[in-house]
Amino acid sequence: MFHENESVKDIKIAYIGGGSRGWAWTLMNDLKKANDISGKVYLYDIDFEAAMNNQIIGNKIDGKNWNYYAVKAIGEALSGADFVIISIMPGSFDEMEFDVHAPEKYGVWQSVGDTAGPGGFMRALRTVPMMRSIASNIRKYCPTATVINYTNPMAVCIGALYREFPEIRAYGCCHEVFGTQKLLSHALLEMEGIEATRQEMSVNVVGVNHFTWFTSAKYKDIDLFDVYTRFIDKFYETGYNREGLGNWMNNSFRNNARVRMDLFKRFGFVAAAGDRHLAEFMDNADYLRDPEYVKQWMFGLTPVSWRKNNLKERLARSQRLLSGEEEYALRETGEEGAQQIRALVGLGTMVTNINLPNVGQLSNLPMGTIVETNAVFRNDGFKPVCAGAVPDSIYPLISRAARENDKMLDAAFSLDLAYARQCFFELNMLKTLTEAEKHALFEEMCQGTKHYLKDYR
Amino acid sequence: MFHENESVKDIKIAYIGGGSRGWAWTLMNDLKKANDISGKVYLYDIDFEAAMNNQIIGNKIDGKNWNYYAVKAIGEALSGADFVIISIMPGSFDEMEFDVHAPEKYGVWQSVGDTAGPGGFMRALRTVPMMRSIASNIRKYCPTATVINYTNPMAVCIGALYREFPEIRAYGCCHEVFGTQKLLSHALLEMEGIEATRQEMSVNVVGVNHFTWFTSAKYKDIDLFDVYTRFIDKFYETGYNREGLGNWMNNSFRNNARVRMDLFKRFGFVAAAGDRHLAEFMDNADYLRDPEYVKQWMFGLTPVSWRKNNLKERLARSQRLLSGEEEYALRETGEEGAQQIRALVGLGTMVTNINLPNVGQLSNLPMGTIVETNAVFRNDGFKPVCAGAVPDSIYPLISRAARENDKMLDAAFSLDLAYARQCFFELNMLKTLTEAEKHALFEEMCQGTKHYLKDYR
Amino acid sequence: MFHENESVKDIKIAYIGGGSRGWAWTLMNDLKKANDISGKVYLYDIDFEAAMNNQIIGNKIDGKNWNYYAVKAIGEALSGADFVIISIMPGSFDEMEFDVHAPEKYGVWQSVGDTAGPGGFMRALRTVPMMRSIASNIRKYCPTATVINYTNPMAVCIGALYREFPEIRAYGCCHEVFGTQKLLSHALLEMEGIEATRQEMSVNVVGVNHFTWFTSAKYKDIDLFDVYTRFIDKFYETGYNREGLGNWMNNSFRNNARVRMDLFKRFGFVAAAGDRHLAEFMDNADYLRDPEYVKQWMFGLTPVSWRKNNLKERLARSQRLLSGEEEYALRETGEEGAQQIRALVGLGTMVTNINLPNVGQLSNLPMGTIVETNAVFRNDGFKPVCAGAVPDSIYPLISRAARENDKMLDAAFSLDLAYARQCFFELNMLKTLTEAEKHALFEEMCQGTKHYLKDYR
Amino acid sequence: MFHENESVKDIKIAYIGGGSRGWAWTLMNDLKKANDISGKVYLYDIDFEAAMNNQIIGNKIDGKNWNYYAVKAIGEALSGADFVIISIMPGSFDEMEFDVHAPEKYGVWQSVGDTAGPGGFMRALRTVPMMRSIASNIRKYCPTATVINYTNPMAVCIGALYREFPEIRAYGCCHEVFGTQKLLSHALLEMEGIEATRQEMSVNVVGVNHFTWFTSAKYKDIDLFDVYTRFIDKFYETGYNREGLGNWMNNSFRNNARVRMDLFKRFGFVAAAGDRHLAEFMDNADYLRDPEYVKQWMFGLTPVSWRKNNLKERLARSQRLLSGEEEYALRETGEEGAQQIRALVGLGTMVTNINLPNVGQLSNLPMGTIVETNAVFRNDGFKPVCAGAVPDSIYPLISRAARENDKMLDAAFSLDLAYARQCFFELNMLKTLTEAEKHALFEEMCQGTKHYLKDYR
Repeated sequence: MFHENESVKDIKIAYIGGGSRGWAWTLMNDLKKANDISGKVYLYDIDFEAAMNNQIIGNKIDGKNWNYYAVKAIGEALSGADFVIISIMPGSFDEMEFDVHAPEKYGVWQSVGDTAGPGGFMRALRTVPMMRSIASNIRKYCPTATVINYTNPMAVCIGALYREFPEIRAYGCCHEVFGTQKLLSHALLEMEGIEATRQEMSVNVVGVNHFTWFTSAKYKDIDLFDVYTRFIDKFYETGYNREGLGNWMNNSFRNNARVRMDLFKRFGFVAAAGDRHLAEFMDNADYLRDPEYVKQWMFGLTPVSWRKNNLKERLARSQRLLSGEEEYALRETGEEGAQQIRALVGLGTMVTNINLPNVGQLSNLPMGTIVETNAVFRNDGFKPVCAGAVPDSIYPLISRAARENDKMLDAAFSLDLAYARQCFFELNMLKTLTEAEKHALFEEMCQGTKHYLKDYR
Repeated sequence: MFHENESVKDIKIAYIGGGSRGWAWTLMNDLKKANDISGKVYLYDIDFEAAMNNQIIGNKIDGKNWNYYAVKAIGEALSGADFVIISIMPGSFDEMEFDVHAPEKYGVWQSVGDTAGPGGFMRALRTVPMMRSIASNIRKYCPTATVINYTNPMAVCIGALYREFPEIRAYGCCHEVFGTQKLLSHALLEMEGIEATRQEMSVNVVGVNHFTWFTSAKYKDIDLFDVYTRFIDKFYETGYNREGLGNWMNNSFRNNARVRMDLFKRFGFVAAAGDRHLAEFMDNADYLRDPEYVKQWMFGLTPVSWRKNNLKERLARSQRLLSGEEEYALRETGEEGAQQIRALVGLGTMVTNINLPNVGQLSNLPMGTIVETNAVFRNDGFKPVCAGAVPDSIYPLISRAARENDKMLDAAFSLDLAYARQCFFELNMLKTLTEAEKHALFEEMCQGTKHYLKDYR
Repeated sequence: MFHENESVKDIKIAYIGGGSRGWAWTLMNDLKKANDISGKVYLYDIDFEAAMNNQIIGNKIDGKNWNYYAVKAIGEALSGADFVIISIMPGSFDEMEFDVHAPEKYGVWQSVGDTAGPGGFMRALRTVPMMRSIASNIRKYCPTATVINYTNPMAVCIGALYREFPEIRAYGCCHEVFGTQKLLSHALLEMEGIEATRQEMSVNVVGVNHFTWFTSAKYKDIDLFDVYTRFIDKFYETGYNREGLGNWMNNSFRNNARVRMDLFKRFGFVAAAGDRHLAEFMDNADYLRDPEYVKQWMFGLTPVSWRKNNLKERLARSQRLLSGEEEYALRETGEEGAQQIRALVGLGTMVTNINLPNVGQLSNLPMGTIVETNAVFRNDGFKPVCAGAVPDSIYPLISRAARENDKMLDAAFSLDLAYARQCFFELNMLKTLTEAEKHALFEEMCQGTKHYLKDYR
Repeated sequence: MFHENESVKDIKIAYIGGGSRGWAWTLMNDLKKANDISGKVYLYDIDFEAAMNNQIIGNKIDGKNWNYYAVKAIGEALSGADFVIISIMPGSFDEMEFDVHAPEKYGVWQSVGDTAGPGGFMRALRTVPMMRSIASNIRKYCPTATVINYTNPMAVCIGALYREFPEIRAYGCCHEVFGTQKLLSHALLEMEGIEATRQEMSVNVVGVNHFTWFTSAKYKDIDLFDVYTRFIDKFYETGYNREGLGNWMNNSFRNNARVRMDLFKRFGFVAAAGDRHLAEFMDNADYLRDPEYVKQWMFGLTPVSWRKNNLKERLARSQRLLSGEEEYALRETGEEGAQQIRALVGLGTMVTNINLPNVGQLSNLPMGTIVETNAVFRNDGFKPVCAGAVPDSIYPLISRAARENDKMLDAAFSLDLAYARQCFFELNMLKTLTEAEKHALFEEMCQGTKHYLKDYR
């Protein structure tokens, strides 16, 4: 790549999982909109046809500043890459069916099932070997590239990349924090009548992915903890449902922020992910007792059937985009990847939250465990900001979550199902199960995901 | 203070040392230029007349967005302050005469004498009690104010503020790093023909004040270490003297960067302060052997006589500004204080280097010692950026410097001259002196500064 | 001192608080019994007569291996000391009357009142200036001596010694851990029929003084957590009252370990101090609701009247020992000071729990805060053992306790009652009081202890 | 195992590398002498016949308190083990021939070639996969066993065990420190006429295996740094050669401590391994310039031919021990394994130096890197002692050594020869080679060790 006038040209991006019908389009959208960077995006996917389709769609979306190329070998994508984007689906929704729903017969209800709990665990077993393979290819083809991961379980994926290749320059991005920044902006509007963007909510982020918290939050000189306290006084019982955004009952991803509001009341800090994610890090009895109880908390369990339908829709849309029946309309995606790339190639400074191994940014969590905090992005790289210590009240929760992530990583690195079983049995989400139930569940879930466990003993 | 439109109004700044004829005018200049902030500046100085004069000068410089008020009591300045600026002269140049020149008879030549070595030590003994008093007043009158210190010895001053009042929100600013960023920008111009500002040199700063180093430096996508290596190949022997900037022989502050270039060759990292400061952290034999030898390195020893003359000039200028004989002309000061204030009140994000207690930003230096690294400034405060570990080659030097700073602080906190003497004897700069010489020197220097040691036993 | 054959002679000990009628006799007893060390003990006390009496009593107890000398000046005691023992009474029981009982009218019941809560706070205000003075004298007279503190509030005292003189070689000793080791030995006897000494209970100690916990406990190859679990099943309801040790109802210091057993059930780790101390670190509602409620937990509140009576008895005994009416009978004191001295002069290796600034022995507490963990004692000094991280479940409790200790230290170092008041108001034990009640209480308690607050503004 | 009277019975030890004709006999010897422990030792070796022979020899040496069993499957040895001892030969001396001698043609002379430099690197490539396999078997068969490793390269082996199975309870033992304790005891005898054992030299150990240093050393109340300084004044030129211990010229393992003495003079701390090892961590030019230069420093290069001959002798001795021609004579081995086992089963407390991941015992080295410091051994396990910070003067050396160890581990974990090559090229010992020479050397050494690189890409 090189700088020319006020722009950077010939940036080379390798997109692993380049056949994606979600994140890939978002990136194409955002690259198109970032008009001071240009270059080539190499799309690699185990489903080459999907990558080919995205080559066509990508070139339709832009084709001027950015050119898209589907490639058949990962090395082709990675060689000489400045950036590597990883956004893969580890397995299909058939496997995810087991991740999410197999535990239900034992009373374990997961609202997402891709991060924590038994679902996250099995997904980690599938994903880690893929991440190791990607990391070893990065070591081989582009060891100094910046690597941006979007794949879940995020913390485990970042951990796998670093454990496989300790010098990798990788970080993980997640938009869950943004959603709670938006919630704070709504609180500001509701309580103070002030309109502001989510970026204007200055927050100090601490925690692990999907279980992040704000230890402070300010808008200009206004302390948002005060605002949020009053907001909760008003909306705790009814939940908060922004006009025009659809009802949580009709949308697997929507929620009324009741879990977040409850966590603020209980712990004194702003839980900063969607309610569906947060609930999975608490005791089952807290929010996920059963589907009826979940309704009281006004968030939806996301059944895999919904995801399957949604995929069908996305496939259909892919066809329409390919055929020209539909033209891709640029939009505000709310994602930051393209902005981060701009900062990293030298177009500005950016401060935002990412997932990284702990090198001290959270002073009372173990070194090396994967944490989410703010970081500074500039042309000399990304560096975490010292976020202080995790506050007392939420320390046990975050420490446990970090430890479960580490255990998932250990289990997956061992390639040993006997050891994985032991780790699985210790999951907080399974603590109400008998030993026999745990055994049965583990066997069933392994069976369900067996195509991806071939390298395990 | 409050936000209105895109600006922040009614900011209250307390300026301790408000009679200053240098830093104070610089701040007035920069506040005037920062046209989206406004408020009041309370000037407190033990020399009330000087503060009164600055009230007049300040109100001449601005008087619209900013109003200046000289006050007689420190509490009057501090009550309700949003920001406290500390820029005091600890003692007069008569004391400094001893700091700098008394050691010369023992072959100890100090190029500045205000930070390290015997001069820095005695200055610390004078300054720390003043800083403690200021800190305790801040605790009393404005415990949550942001405190910006410009006084030297910087690290010891910041240490004193935090040891007196551990919850203080203080940091220290120094422009020495900027000078080496400028040097890099000149190297870029010389070697690559590229013109760029010093701010565009992205540097990772590690070290202690006046002995800071860059462990990486980039301009856009150009690695400045490569550029600097070639620059040094070209200029090492002759030194580098920018056209129009005056000759080092005629200017106590100018230098030809030969020490910096030599340190890069010896240690592989960019020493990032002026040569006069850097030399004082090395062995005397390295650069400060004697005045003749110093000439080879093309930097000047700064005699206190020069400072006395300079003060006279500044006093004269003060009179001219007061009388209206001279009108203050706004200029680019190169200082960042006003910009930092803008960021801290919520007008943008800024990343720059400051002095703070180590909370992990430098992973292999002791926690709590005062270090200089980059930090992020936003409306939610200033937070250090994780700068990594001090590299092996310079670790012993920086570690020693940090330890000497800690010792100065311990000595000054003890208010015990017998203990201070022990600490003084261990200074690296005095290692060639006999025990008897050290005794004599300590006695002479204490005698020289005795008016400020009244609280010591 | 020097080694001769298998013993160490001419050890010089300075005893600050040498007029004590408790700890001093214990030390005399233990030095007498340690027959391979000998030397001189210099007794310094602000009550010189008390020191004189102890000189006589000490020389009666031993007089052969050890000689006791009352001295009038602290410098006389400290000059050339190998060891300094600090065991002072900060103020009299008249002040302690306010510490313990003044808060009762607001429903704040303290079982001890010398460590945490308002009582510990006021005691800290009195004690810290004394500790600073002692530390500065140690810096002057014997900077490399080993300093052993027995004074409470322990953590604050150790903190004060190190903050005043950062290079001091001081640690703090407390026997509370021993009592819970004994409790475990009783559990072993009750449940397994095994007799063993408390020293044979290998425990990993974590926490802060008087709020220490065992994260593991073993006797030989037996896991004592299992044994203790069963022991608690048996004794939880009734409490455990060892035969022949007197009833908790008749003894201010006795308890039935119900608090400890309850804490084990709640948190999964062995709380390892007496119930009276532990209760003060929890919420008032937990165990200290009111005197009636305390009875259910089967421990006694220790009224200061009891201490006053007890002092009378000790004074009477002092007279009897002086007059020869009573002869001092050697006993097993259960204290370890003399054994530690033996190890430190080179007679064996010892591992036991002490109070020290955190340098990493507890990996998730702040550096520098005073913690209690195991340490190794040898002739090359005492060094903490890496005790790991404070477990999640008890982290918030221990972190809060450590922070309150740090705050007491800050308050006392400030010598500023306005700031002290702020810190006082934040005490967890006072969280049920109104602002007005806190004000009134602080005023009353300051009034009660005013003779010792003369240096405060 | 179980305690009975004052002894511990039925301890189960798995010995991996149980066919060894060195360490195995040492252990048998020491177990026999430790008369309060007894049990079974399972000997596993890829050379089953060698294990069978050791079964016979072991049972001849003891056969009463300890029984020896050769087993064919590693799981048989590990199942239910209380202790696992790892002492394997990674490859044969044919591979080591390349490790040590291949670099000589490029002027790189290695005195040992099993730890640092190209020899240590290639050995690491062979050994790490073996360690991973052992660790995964331990995870499977005896996850809570205590694992004691004697295999080199020590730091890399311990690193591999922990990276493969993070919860492993493993540490590494090395006797190099003992040799320098002995040297200090000789210094004490020479300079002070005092006879003492090496265990009486209390030392604070810091560093990485084979490059350990003492930051303090005491015998009783005598500071051994003073003694050693005078000892060096006397013996620096001639070297020190203890009577009766053979001449360094005739013995590949002997040396005259000149390197150690020189390092003390240069750095101010006691280098605490044999000269042959220490030299490999310095620049080649320092001590290993060429065989002639090495002679000036009075230590021997250890040719692999010597090792091959020595092995022949050990094999012959094995035959004699088997046939009964020779009877095994018990001796003082100077090893501590059996004593550590005694402490770990509950027979006493022990403090000695071992290799462990850094959890803060060395405060300025990275967390997780493998370091050697003192640790406490008791029935509740082994825990490192806080050894402080690595001193400034030796920090760059130790930090580099630790980093090279980490790189060897990364290279071996990658199973990727291209990546390994990159890491190899960065070795300090190879810095004088051209790129082409490095390539040729790497190829030759890989070729030489190819039987053990089959799993590498």
